[in-house]
Amino acid sequence: MIDQLIGAIREKGNPTVVGLDPTLNMIPSGLREQAFETYGETARGVAELFLTFNRAIIDAVADIVPAVKPQIAMYERYGLDGIDAYVKTVAYAKEKGLVVIGDIKRGDIASTAEAYAAHIGGTVIGGDSVDLWKEDFITVNPYLGTDGIAPFVKAAAEKKRGIFVLVKTSNRSSAELQDLLVEGRPVYRIVADLVNSWGKDLIGANGYSAVGAVVGATHPAQGIELRAQLPHTFFLVPGYGAQGGKGADLKGFFDKDGIGCIVNSSRGIIAAWEKDVEFANVPKLGTDFALASRKAALAMKSDLEAAV
Amino acid sequence: MIDQLIGAIREKGNPTVVGLDPTLNMIPSGLREQAFETYGETARGVAELFLTFNRAIIDAVADIVPAVKPQIAMYERYGLDGIDAYVKTVAYAKEKGLVVIGDIKRGDIASTAEAYAAHIGGTVIGGDSVDLWKEDFITVNPYLGTDGIAPFVKAAAEKKRGIFVLVKTSNRSSAELQDLLVEGRPVYRIVADLVNSWGKDLIGANGYSAVGAVVGATHPAQGIELRAQLPHTFFLVPGYGAQGGKGADLKGFFDKDGIGCIVNSSRGIIAAWEKDVEFANVPKLGTDFALASRKAALAMKSDLEAAV
Repeated sequence: MIDQLIGAIREKGNPTVVGLDPTLNMIPSGLREQAFETYGETARGVAELFLTFNRAIIDAVADIVPAVKPQIAMYERYGLDGIDAYVKTVAYAKEKGLVVIGDIKRGDIASTAEAYAAHIGGTVIGGDSVDLWKEDFITVNPYLGTDGIAPFVKAAAEKKRGIFVLVKTSNRSSAELQDLLVEGRPVYRIVADLVNSWGKDLIGANGYSAVGAVVGATHPAQGIELRAQLPHTFFLVPGYGAQGGKGADLKGFFDKDGIGCIVNSSRGIIAAWEKDVEFANVPKLGTDFALASRKAALAMKSDLEAAV
Repeated sequence: MIDQLIGAIREKGNPTVVGLDPTLNMIPSGLREQAFETYGETARGVAELFLTFNRAIIDAVADIVPAVKPQIAMYERYGLDGIDAYVKTVAYAKEKGLVVIGDIKRGDIASTAEAYAAHIGGTVIGGDSVDLWKEDFITVNPYLGTDGIAPFVKAAAEKKRGIFVLVKTSNRSSAELQDLLVEGRPVYRIVADLVNSWGKDLIGANGYSAVGAVVGATHPAQGIELRAQLPHTFFLVPGYGAQGGKGADLKGFFDKDGIGCIVNSSRGIIAAWEKDVEFANVPKLGTDFALASRKAALAMKSDLEAAV
């Protein structure tokens, strides 16, 4: 799957992943009203609305970006109905030929991590393996160490999927734990060594492993450092755009061939209509708002091209 | 809620939480066959089976234990149907007067953590706060630092619920990150300081905060050390029983008044019928298997009484 992801990035000439992290207030009021009229102002109504919103964005960007990254928390907030919308969003994006990175940040001890690994590894029921979640990649949390990650690595190997392990996250307080110095080395570099060891047997044709790392765009110096430390580790890079990361800051996250990472933008793409004067009347315009997302994704492509 | 939990522990004289972590192979074959006949050997069938299994256990132990801890991974493995069984398990346990600790180990950056906080904080829909998940406490992961935890603390404060932050987990490879030494102090003690600061404004009538810590039973020395470091932090203690922790090892997790922690047992209680000769014929006996769970919970109570 890592080779498929790299192939899709090359084909589209765009290392952008669109974060599908909807909130009610970023959805045009016309769409909102329509969904609430049909389904009620309920969790079900929000779920249907998110799905409509996501499908419009996916349709608008599927030919110009390689991947989407739905953030499950935004759906989990709306309970079962919300998670239903998450699952359907993943399925829809895959139908449209996109690679799907499920941003689920799961992590637990051995047998429990094995259960979570169903996200990429499927679930055995009645002797058959059923793919109930369908993500191609998921994000995972390393705080519990190797026995919490091994089941995800095993599932990735068996099903040709992948994971991105949190190494250096984009938020400000990531420093509290991740930057602590252990004999002069920050914790995130020690986690990076673990990521390297977890992924060493899953390196694909492009030289990158199915075990990747999350490295925030807000930390350009650490990006350079980690790129050198982890020549076989693909990076998922959050924090571009709304969180302050810029294309020019990201040069060091790429390798000498201009691959090596995929950069996420969520709000900057999916809520682009809010800040785009061309779309000032969008609340009345059905799903036309998604054209602003396309425009933003193309602008991001240009911005990243300058960095590569 | 921390005062309610402590009250329930005192009332029942039992600091045991029953881990509701079902797997197919620990459920008596008679029950399994019945569920699959009715609902099919499908995710839905497994979900209904888990719910029947959990309800039988809850009915059998509700008067002798203060709390249950469903592990969401075991349900998430079965997709939407599985999560439906999780939600219904939480609701059923609360109906029966039990405190519910949702073992969900969530954690993300600020706005995303806020979405996950719906588990204890509810979800605003149409101007009303709706409680879609209903857990009293949840477990959370500290790897992202304060801005990833603050939304959970806020929700706990507003809704009088609580969280348990992973500090020192019960699994063997917890040492890889959690025991790294930073100027001579292990990472888990630095996380413990953070837990203390996150919880300092939420200390209840019994002297314990709504922000608790997860400390594994498999680390008795660290338990003593953390008990001294965190006088206002209640501990959720996994790793008893199947993972090797014993009552005698846990003395140091309690305070001088014999409170301060709640000890989890999952397989040791819910799958007790498998190893109990009295229940050799249980596959034919409907939900009688749960009497073995009651017996095991009472045995654990005695074992812990010796420690307190």
